[in-house]
Amino acid sequence: MHVISERRLDGGCLERDFTLGEIPGTVWTPDHVDSPLPVILLGHPGGMRRMYPRLAARARRCLADGYAAATIELPGSGDRPRLDGVDQARAGLRRALAAGEPVGEEIVERLILPLVEQAVPEWRATLNALLALPEIGGPVGFSGGVIAVGVRLALVEPRIVAAGLFAGSYVPRAIFDEARQVTIPLHVLLQWDDEGNDRQLALDLFDAFGSAEKTLQANMGGHTGVPAWAGEDASRFFARHLR
Amino acid sequence: MHVISERRLDGGCLERDFTLGEIPGTVWTPDHVDSPLPVILLGHPGGMRRMYPRLAARARRCLADGYAAATIELPGSGDRPRLDGVDQARAGLRRALAAGEPVGEEIVERLILPLVEQAVPEWRATLNALLALPEIGGPVGFSGGVIAVGVRLALVEPRIVAAGLFAGSYVPRAIFDEARQVTIPLHVLLQWDDEGNDRQLALDLFDAFGSAEKTLQANMGGHTGVPAWAGEDASRFFARHLR
Repeated sequence: MHVISERRLDGGCLERDFTLGEIPGTVWTPDHVDSPLPVILLGHPGGMRRMYPRLAARARRCLADGYAAATIELPGSGDRPRLDGVDQARAGLRRALAAGEPVGEEIVERLILPLVEQAVPEWRATLNALLALPEIGGPVGFSGGVIAVGVRLALVEPRIVAAGLFAGSYVPRAIFDEARQVTIPLHVLLQWDDEGNDRQLALDLFDAFGSAEKTLQANMGGHTGVPAWAGEDASRFFARHLR
Repeated sequence: MHVISERRLDGGCLERDFTLGEIPGTVWTPDHVDSPLPVILLGHPGGMRRMYPRLAARARRCLADGYAAATIELPGSGDRPRLDGVDQARAGLRRALAAGEPVGEEIVERLILPLVEQAVPEWRATLNALLALPEIGGPVGFSGGVIAVGVRLALVEPRIVAAGLFAGSYVPRAIFDEARQVTIPLHVLLQWDDEGNDRQLALDLFDAFGSAEKTLQANMGGHTGVPAWAGEDASRFFARHLR
């Protein structure tokens, strides 16, 4: 992990941009840390620069709650090399949604599986680097999307003890089989009228999770309309599992 | 409203049993009230005496949050006269559930509609009496079940400004038409594997509500397995609307 820039934000927050090999990322820690903190990995739909204001706000809530926070750019997003076929699959998804047609499983697979395949080992390598920082000691939570990435991470990364997942993107059927094997506590957020997602698919995925503790919170509105109190409820979910 | 007994509980809580005509009820207020409080009407499945420990716990949370609380016995429950046909309908429901058969709309109507027809005017009369107490001034919330009673109350009683509904019982189709006309903020709690309810029916009802602000929170477990944090989240819902 190479820190390429750092800033001190008000409220005692240190924001460091880093690269891990070719992957750009950002880690947020308090200015002063007495003992190593839990950390929340902040998932997002790709495009860290565009997402920065929302990511920084989520990170500062993590710090206020007593955790560090970190994120990395998704494969194929931002300045990272395009992923073969994903852009075409995304165009196919948009055409289907615009035409009001069902989104074929093949489009979902071509859009999501390459992301999962590449992003999950990248998150795990990032976690190794984060846990080597003196400020960070775990336990580890994952928060956000892409939800299929979160499902795979929840299954294969034993250091993640709780996940707050945003059901705001399509999920290939193959990932449902993995969801059935997930056992960590989950807090799943769903926007009831998400224009870029299928509500029934999200409900089926929630049903599929093997976790004994799982909560679905559905709120009104579209993809970007998550109300403020949903963030507060997710924050309390993590407080039960990371402290 | 005739107070028939009163007790001072620890924590500065005054618990008064009352009758309003033939209807028994209980109201909980703080020992000392500086200015009239909001009040939450505590719905339940019937059988106040059996439900007392849970009702008293919910009431004390209301007091801790700065509200008064009150409940009344459901028509046909506890020591109140049976309702024609409701016991037979309940037996029919139990037979269908035990046999794993679909619950017919006719059974649901015969079980629920008489309750709604009688309970809603009783709650409204109770509310008149509660608001005449010097300790209580509104605004008013409704919390709990029977959910069909809560839907009708949310529609017809303009003094109720927010409702936390427990989707733990069947709802006749006629009530869906009323749900579409409800516009107050709603917080709907669903137990994902409720043995005495139909999950899809509950999701359809949530979808039907006309409210611009509505939240569904679904948790794992059966009818009586609502986790503690679900109560905390509902409490924060009321804090946003009753304070």
